[in-house]
Amino acid sequence: MRIGVLGTGVVGATIAGKLVAVGQEVRMGSRAPGNAKAVAWAEKSGASASQGSFADAAAFAEELVFNCTAGTHSLEALELAGADNLLGKILVDLANPLDFSRGMPPTLTVCNDDSLGERIQRLYPAVRVVKTLNTVNSALMVDPGALPEDHDLFVSGDDPVAKSRVVDALVDWFGWKRERIHDLGDISTSRGTEMLLPLWVRLYAANQSPRFNFRIVKGSAPA
Amino acid sequence: MRIGVLGTGVVGATIAGKLVAVGQEVRMGSRAPGNAKAVAWAEKSGASASQGSFADAAAFAEELVFNCTAGTHSLEALELAGADNLLGKILVDLANPLDFSRGMPPTLTVCNDDSLGERIQRLYPAVRVVKTLNTVNSALMVDPGALPEDHDLFVSGDDPVAKSRVVDALVDWFGWKRERIHDLGDISTSRGTEMLLPLWVRLYAANQSPRFNFRIVKGSAPA
Repeated sequence: MRIGVLGTGVVGATIAGKLVAVGQEVRMGSRAPGNAKAVAWAEKSGASASQGSFADAAAFAEELVFNCTAGTHSLEALELAGADNLLGKILVDLANPLDFSRGMPPTLTVCNDDSLGERIQRLYPAVRVVKTLNTVNSALMVDPGALPEDHDLFVSGDDPVAKSRVVDALVDWFGWKRERIHDLGDISTSRGTEMLLPLWVRLYAANQSPRFNFRIVKGSAPA
Repeated sequence: MRIGVLGTGVVGATIAGKLVAVGQEVRMGSRAPGNAKAVAWAEKSGASASQGSFADAAAFAEELVFNCTAGTHSLEALELAGADNLLGKILVDLANPLDFSRGMPPTLTVCNDDSLGERIQRLYPAVRVVKTLNTVNSALMVDPGALPEDHDLFVSGDDPVAKSRVVDALVDWFGWKRERIHDLGDISTSRGTEMLLPLWVRLYAANQSPRFNFRIVKGSAPA
């Protein structure tokens, strides 16, 4: 399947690399075709890997586009990708609206009564936005088995069919266990996962490692 | 030991009840002495239980005062408790600044670049504020073994000795495992745990139960 990946950073390269590894055709998009990191990635990744503009990557995608841009640049990247190129497709939104301009730890540029996931869905009503993977380090996104116990992922989105399609991709391509993926509800529930980041960055600092994730422990129903 | 508990709701009654059960003397404080819920709690809880104003409860405490008021009322409750009555004591802050006035799910009245824990510490610099327990349902606060697996708690505060004292109380009185309590750092890390609540309330909705908590799964150090 032809898939678009927006973003050439660590997250983009990790997602794009895994998708190629599981047999998909991937076009990595950036601000302008010929981005050095995108070219280097495509050259080393074989015939199923290509690169181009954000618009090229979005147009290339049959069904799935992964937003792996930094959250503070996502809206600009999507504008460059173009609503027409995204029309009816599923946008898997991995971005967090983290503002590092005032140093560490970062704050969020949007939270509490709105979220980046919602903003994207409002701006692109004909795109099927599914927020997920934004609560884990990039290495764990595509290799959840790297931790010694099962751990959890969340999905948010207005379109149940799109969420189901993304969950299949998480399970079949990235190795997540279906029963450890929690459907939180509509896209407004992105607030919950984006607002987990302030705790995540502090646990990263306390542990001196990004190699951790959350596991939900549930009780049995009261008698 | 004589301990003050501010608040007569479910959280206050749960904390106060457990403290009495483990042999402490507890005074429950409310806006005015004679609060019906506080009186009922004290009457059923035996000779170690008493009630009074917020100031009475704070003055009664030797070392530990638990802030179990609703987050939107905490600053007013602490003003009534009185800085002199809290001077040098440890304030265990369980409150979350949840605003339910616009319906469910709630938003936060403070977040991102500030937190309720920090506000309290700034207003009462001679009080040793330790934020903890605010990420779990009240029943789990004092009965962590009710879930089928170990799960985790966080502490935030500027005073390491005060944090250590509170961790001892969590372990010795409430039954938490020491190794499942994460010291996040200074009181500004309260932002992380208070901002977990938007995810918490959505998981509550998705699960139709508050009987859950987060467990941090860590990887081994990279080779």
